[in-house]
Amino acid sequence: MKYLLLVAHGSRRQASNEEVQTLAGRVEKQLPNGFSGVKAAFLELASPSIEMAIDACYEEGASELLILPYFLSAGTHVAKDMPTEVAKAMDKWPDKKVEIASHIGSLDPMIDLITSVCH
Amino acid sequence: MKYLLLVAHGSRRQASNEEVQTLAGRVEKQLPNGFSGVKAAFLELASPSIEMAIDACYEEGASELLILPYFLSAGTHVAKDMPTEVAKAMDKWPDKKVEIASHIGSLDPMIDLITSVCH
Repeated sequence: MKYLLLVAHGSRRQASNEEVQTLAGRVEKQLPNGFSGVKAAFLELASPSIEMAIDACYEEGASELLILPYFLSAGTHVAKDMPTEVAKAMDKWPDKKVEIASHIGSLDPMIDLITSVCH
Repeated sequence: MKYLLLVAHGSRRQASNEEVQTLAGRVEKQLPNGFSGVKAAFLELASPSIEMAIDACYEEGASELLILPYFLSAGTHVAKDMPTEVAKAMDKWPDKKVEIASHIGSLDPMIDLITSVCH
């Protein structure tokens, strides 16, 4: 039972955090085969934290977690802070599998998303 | 002759700015029909500015500009700062057309981009 976890930076502006939660809700309706849940988490400034969200996924019965950094560029947050937070949370779940995908700005279909606005 | 202008926030970290420029270069190789160029610009902290990039597009002969805010959420930068900068730059080009698209985080195909990591 795989879960997808979308990790965003988090903002002081509550509407930005809600935008991420709404997006996760929309992804949930189109989850590919093999995935049974999706959640959003925030590196800072908003809740749930990465640790809270990882706990929630495994408590709901996830056996495996795919974490997608919802960041446009690969700064320190993506390269260091997020892996550190994930490793800390995983201490509690030594038998579970976790994988961190490349940040969203680096994914090949980003090109198609950009050109989708051209009309 | 339409141009696409990708406007990112800009970062103190030069590699992040280069990531946006590289992306624009990749988009250029897959530009849809009707578009003849793509450029990147930065709202702050990096060069070229929005004004510099808009000038460059029109000086190269663009007749129309589609601006895509390369932002994941619709904060003040997207809602206020960017339109203000664009309006300021357009004062110089009263006969040219410009359109600002929705920020990239709000585009429908973002769902497909997110689920593309699920395997």
